[in-house]
Amino acid sequence: MAEKNKHDDAELNEEMDQEIETTIEENEISEFDQLTAEFNEMEDKFLRARAEIANMQNRNKNEREQLVKYRSQDLAKKILPVIDNLERALATEVNDDQGASLKKGVEMVLESLTVALKEEGITEIPAVDVVFDPNLHQAVQTIPATDDVPTDSIVEVLQKGYQLHDRVLRPAMVIVAQ
Amino acid sequence: MAEKNKHDDAELNEEMDQEIETTIEENEISEFDQLTAEFNEMEDKFLRARAEIANMQNRNKNEREQLVKYRSQDLAKKILPVIDNLERALATEVNDDQGASLKKGVEMVLESLTVALKEEGITEIPAVDVVFDPNLHQAVQTIPATDDVPTDSIVEVLQKGYQLHDRVLRPAMVIVAQ
Repeated sequence: MAEKNKHDDAELNEEMDQEIETTIEENEISEFDQLTAEFNEMEDKFLRARAEIANMQNRNKNEREQLVKYRSQDLAKKILPVIDNLERALATEVNDDQGASLKKGVEMVLESLTVALKEEGITEIPAVDVVFDPNLHQAVQTIPATDDVPTDSIVEVLQKGYQLHDRVLRPAMVIVAQ
Repeated sequence: MAEKNKHDDAELNEEMDQEIETTIEENEISEFDQLTAEFNEMEDKFLRARAEIANMQNRNKNEREQLVKYRSQDLAKKILPVIDNLERALATEVNDDQGASLKKGVEMVLESLTVALKEEGITEIPAVDVVFDPNLHQAVQTIPATDDVPTDSIVEVLQKGYQLHDRVLRPAMVIVAQ
């Protein structure tokens, strides 16, 4: 009986040990799962941050390109009246050599200014022998269309228009047939 | 003896069980440690990515500001000879009303151009009544200094210089006393 008891005790101990082990194992699995979840969350945050970096790089590249492409816009807009005034000054009639010399000088200035603007992507908007385009031309006056002057043909340019690459700085002011 | 053996078997089993448990536990701890290390590594990568985002934001902000601040540089540089030529044209003597009218027109053009440039941060570099500064002035000729004309005083401006904000577009060409 004593032996039997001893044996039972051993079995009982074994069972108790197993129960404790299971609890420890469950706790460990639970902590492991918890850490796995935290790892996945952190990985997700990292992948999103990496995607944001790629997005920022693209966005900044585009912004920079736009800034560079249209960088001359503000100064160019302010210089357009200068061209208008140079052209107006050149319409003055001169009678002597000094006047002619001054006029020649102004012509060369206008030429060099036009070249400088062109090099920066600023060009005159075509308005002669083209069809009226409301994106490029502003109709400040209309005349009735005829057989010779069909609808939407530009009759006269009152003020030249200019564009910077594809962007209109100032539309051409025109008289259009309607 | 049979009972004794049984007991020994039980003890042996228990010992073996414990050994197995220890191995499992060690494996679990090892996997847990491994995952912890991976988590730390991932967290480190995330924190570095977040720092990179902050750096990129600052860098891009600075780049944008620089691009905007100096955006007019290229066009302005090309327009400087236009100003030179307008000033040269204005040096022409005129004898009659037409000539005077043309000259008046050119003066107004120059004035409007100067205002446009100034609005964009482009200004003439002071060269009269200032001490020679090699960052702003370029000495194209020197004359000996005297009591009235001390060393480093600017005697004459041969060509005006211009700056865009703090950046020199073209130094003033001067004659300086040495």
